[in-house]
Amino acid sequence: MKVGFIGLGVMGAPMAGHLAKAGHEVMVFNRRSAKAEQWLTYNKGAIADSPAELAKHCEMVFSCVGNDRDIEEVTLGAQGAFRNMQPGSTFVDHTTTSATVAKKLASVAQQNGFAFLDAPVSGGQSGAENGILSIMVGGEEAVFEKAKPVMTAYGRTIQLIGPSGSGQLCKMVNQISFAGIVQSLAEAIHFSKAVGLDIDKVMSVISGGAAQSWQMQNRYKTMKEGKYEFGFAVDWMRKDLGMLLEEAKAKGIQLPITEIIDQYYADVQKMGGGRWDTSSLLARLEKK
Amino acid sequence: MKVGFIGLGVMGAPMAGHLAKAGHEVMVFNRRSAKAEQWLTYNKGAIADSPAELAKHCEMVFSCVGNDRDIEEVTLGAQGAFRNMQPGSTFVDHTTTSATVAKKLASVAQQNGFAFLDAPVSGGQSGAENGILSIMVGGEEAVFEKAKPVMTAYGRTIQLIGPSGSGQLCKMVNQISFAGIVQSLAEAIHFSKAVGLDIDKVMSVISGGAAQSWQMQNRYKTMKEGKYEFGFAVDWMRKDLGMLLEEAKAKGIQLPITEIIDQYYADVQKMGGGRWDTSSLLARLEKK
Repeated sequence: MKVGFIGLGVMGAPMAGHLAKAGHEVMVFNRRSAKAEQWLTYNKGAIADSPAELAKHCEMVFSCVGNDRDIEEVTLGAQGAFRNMQPGSTFVDHTTTSATVAKKLASVAQQNGFAFLDAPVSGGQSGAENGILSIMVGGEEAVFEKAKPVMTAYGRTIQLIGPSGSGQLCKMVNQISFAGIVQSLAEAIHFSKAVGLDIDKVMSVISGGAAQSWQMQNRYKTMKEGKYEFGFAVDWMRKDLGMLLEEAKAKGIQLPITEIIDQYYADVQKMGGGRWDTSSLLARLEKK
Repeated sequence: MKVGFIGLGVMGAPMAGHLAKAGHEVMVFNRRSAKAEQWLTYNKGAIADSPAELAKHCEMVFSCVGNDRDIEEVTLGAQGAFRNMQPGSTFVDHTTTSATVAKKLASVAQQNGFAFLDAPVSGGQSGAENGILSIMVGGEEAVFEKAKPVMTAYGRTIQLIGPSGSGQLCKMVNQISFAGIVQSLAEAIHFSKAVGLDIDKVMSVISGGAAQSWQMQNRYKTMKEGKYEFGFAVDWMRKDLGMLLEEAKAKGIQLPITEIIDQYYADVQKMGGGRWDTSSLLARLEKK
């Protein structure tokens, strides 16, 4: 299939690469063109000068950019893809955005004879590189069924959650669960260190029971060693938490602990840890 | 081996039963003697009139009672086991207590020619019934090595953490991790319900990634349905949180979120949910 990919960052570049490897004819666009040229040295494909040009050539267009403003620019902007989307084609956005923007883009797409899916992912850079992302999709079932086989190039769990915006809302649920787990793990390790426990021994017992989490199994060692220069950056987490807290506020939903942890992440940013992994909540506790 | 078991509650009764099934000669004591008689209808063994009498007959004595005051009564009390512990014998306490009490009992035991291990468990009633508890042990290695084979009757993961008190401190680490996970899962489900998501679909995606937890996999369904009449009771959780927050305070360790969640559990108690499962933090959110 002729597909397009907009945004060749740490997530987008390997995702577009998997599409090329799967045999699709891939056209790419990146705002900084050096990244597109670099991508082309490792993959087969073509570079478009703009999202609008890319859209002309593709049956399905994918994007993975930074935030609401970015996705609006590459879709609705002067050189945006939505200007040239082909009739019956599909635009799949993998960016984590607000549900509001997702619903707006789906509505504009429908009015113009093509389809839009909001499809944020989880699994991080390694999930993208290994092609095993989880993808949470909002949109119509028939459109989802068309896009799903293509997304299997980089996705392992691909689930239609509900109508437009539901993919983004599902990602918010993920981030709410995530935030509290990391903070409680940080408090647990902080306590362990302070009372002089052997953290490896502690974790070998408790990671088999009711306190177990992915975070515990995948982050306790680096937290113990104070290593944070990797993983999912605090700056991105704050972006996600900001959006979901706004969504919650608009609907009168109380998320008291999530709200506090958002402020803890703001503290980490003030410590210069904006690029640190989210597990750096422990560094904040240790600094206090 | 001739062993004793003090405390035949929902945890102790099946644990003592596993010791009998493993071929040990078991003598039991329970403050309410009806429970001991009931235990005897299902298991082979003998009933002691007091912990002191029980201790006379046993090489190894186990206990699983309610709290610090209970364990002090059955060990150091007028009819306590410590009055008659045999030279070279071992007392293993499975109660979740303060580290202070554990260290005190270990010290008294040593002065009197026998050994003490603090060995709180996790895995709940089903873990006790199925003989697959996790056991976190504080004490001397040689004593641990003697007791470990006996504990395999009801334990699957049995780990020496460090010197006396370390078992209790490890259990505290478990409860710190646990509390934040439950609250964040409650906020995640609260948000899901409020925005109208299909929670089963949401969980099918996010339980495979970085937000995964034992709590998510084992509690989301009952939380979704508002079922809390089972599991690990809020009253017991508050007991544990109270002890660990006291330990943290005494050592100047900050556990800000754990402290807040302790108060949330106090709210659940005020709602009449003292016997509810810890996942009832969601009921509190929904009531607000």
